[in-house]
Amino acid sequence: MSLIVTGTIGIDTVYTPSGHAERVLGGSCTYFAAAASFFTPVRLVAAVGDDFPKEHRAILEHFKGIDLAGLETRKGSKTFAWGGKYLANMNSRETLFTELGVLAEHPPRVPESFAHSRHVFLANTHPAVQLGMIEQLPHRVLTVADTMDLWINIAKPELLMLLKEIDGIVLNYDEAELLTGKSNPVTAGRHILDLGPSFVVIKKGEHGALLVHKDGSTHGTLGFGLAALPAYPTEKVVDPTGAGDTFAGGMMGYLSSTGSTDAKKLTSYASIRTALAFGTVAASFNIESYSLERLKTLKRSEIDQRLREYEEMTRIG
Amino acid sequence: MSLIVTGTIGIDTVYTPSGHAERVLGGSCTYFAAAASFFTPVRLVAAVGDDFPKEHRAILEHFKGIDLAGLETRKGSKTFAWGGKYLANMNSRETLFTELGVLAEHPPRVPESFAHSRHVFLANTHPAVQLGMIEQLPHRVLTVADTMDLWINIAKPELLMLLKEIDGIVLNYDEAELLTGKSNPVTAGRHILDLGPSFVVIKKGEHGALLVHKDGSTHGTLGFGLAALPAYPTEKVVDPTGAGDTFAGGMMGYLSSTGSTDAKKLTSYASIRTALAFGTVAASFNIESYSLERLKTLKRSEIDQRLREYEEMTRIG
Repeated sequence: MSLIVTGTIGIDTVYTPSGHAERVLGGSCTYFAAAASFFTPVRLVAAVGDDFPKEHRAILEHFKGIDLAGLETRKGSKTFAWGGKYLANMNSRETLFTELGVLAEHPPRVPESFAHSRHVFLANTHPAVQLGMIEQLPHRVLTVADTMDLWINIAKPELLMLLKEIDGIVLNYDEAELLTGKSNPVTAGRHILDLGPSFVVIKKGEHGALLVHKDGSTHGTLGFGLAALPAYPTEKVVDPTGAGDTFAGGMMGYLSSTGSTDAKKLTSYASIRTALAFGTVAASFNIESYSLERLKTLKRSEIDQRLREYEEMTRIG
Repeated sequence: MSLIVTGTIGIDTVYTPSGHAERVLGGSCTYFAAAASFFTPVRLVAAVGDDFPKEHRAILEHFKGIDLAGLETRKGSKTFAWGGKYLANMNSRETLFTELGVLAEHPPRVPESFAHSRHVFLANTHPAVQLGMIEQLPHRVLTVADTMDLWINIAKPELLMLLKEIDGIVLNYDEAELLTGKSNPVTAGRHILDLGPSFVVIKKGEHGALLVHKDGSTHGTLGFGLAALPAYPTEKVVDPTGAGDTFAGGMMGYLSSTGSTDAKKLTSYASIRTALAFGTVAASFNIESYSLERLKTLKRSEIDQRLREYEEMTRIG
């Protein structure tokens, strides 16, 4: 099928309690596409500057499933760069610097060859850019977006417009609270459902994720659907950067790999719940190293093996 | 079978963002016994002062499964009293006051009629008292304890002795870190396994619980067992007081209800994993009200119904 993603490609500098990585490949689009490529071909739409290192491009090319026809390299522009530092427990981080570069320019265009894409993921970027992207994709049957606190604070009207156009949204616990003013994640999720999407995935980092879904048929008395997934418990936590994006990549990659163009089927409660398990497992590999080091050596069979372990770890009775 | 519990019975004053409850029935032993009584008869060993209100005693008597033969009422003594306040997000609380009362005196004795008990839960109290309790129970085949930061700080030698005598321990995430110096919960759990018990349950409040188990047969390459259980996602969070104790009560109540006296079977990975699901569901009811209000009206059929919902919410594929 045809999964397309737009978002950022970045050059990251990351400090963790155990070490650091300088000017390595990062960005929401990068992590998403790499993770999704284990499940299905992915079309990438993003822009970099002419300073984008060729070894970083080689990493993107290494993932055979990623179609780079939508990667624009802009002469005289700078690639987005980000620096961050994780605190002792890896649960919170501070941004050291942000150099917007190409992100401050016009957004990348969807190439003609991608115009018929059916499955769309809008990785974290300005909601106006996300809206502009979906306008170029009239054949989409499944559209899911990520967002962040920055856009809730400075671009809420555009974000609210976006919510009316998409099937699902993926956001962090504190962002869900910021958007709705509700600290209970189930309540926050229900409020977001009222804003448009059929499902809301609230990410809680090392504590897993929560699904709040319009389809309440499996939870008779509640009137809406709920699923709760713990993170894959692991001792190998080197760098959480990109965990949310690989989570989304595993989720969307799985959904797209079903080959369905039936929006109702794709976004059903059971379908999303399974997709979140694949997302959880994809993210658990990514955090084992800096940048895309672990994903570069990952095999699909390892994902399937860990999914079986995850199933065992979360089974009841 | 014969499940016995020792711990505190208290008079609680609790402030939450939505209201407060004054001098209501509380205590680790109380919550544990009430929750466990839905699964199996429970023998309670605890002490109160002669100020213990008869309406509080009536609540304990309301739970028909609780045998109060081990409840000592001490003339001239005061019942343990505790006051606490939950902060806005319900995840952290501050202690307003603690009046030790009978807890500062000699511990309660196991009555003759309880001496043959096989399944033992040592709810949170001084580890020296917990050690004294198990000495009086020579026929025990399953012993699980709770503890808290206070004892890790002021009674670590006794706690380390206790860990060598028990099958399992239940403690909070931050307590596991305090005890081991390891911030990764899996690593912390493995370190605690090295101190004696066959399994460690790390409680994460609204984020669920993690099981680290000596039996690694289900997780071949790891060499130890892991299970991860999210909390039951709910909007009805009135008062988290007693959540950890009802969690333990559901867990031990289920294990004891199997009727087994085979320690190996009782503490197997699969057995504990199922027990934790019952504990999760028991706790989810308790937090719906102050004190034991919700447990007082709870039916076993409601527990079983919610367990099925929880299973649906956490199922993969």
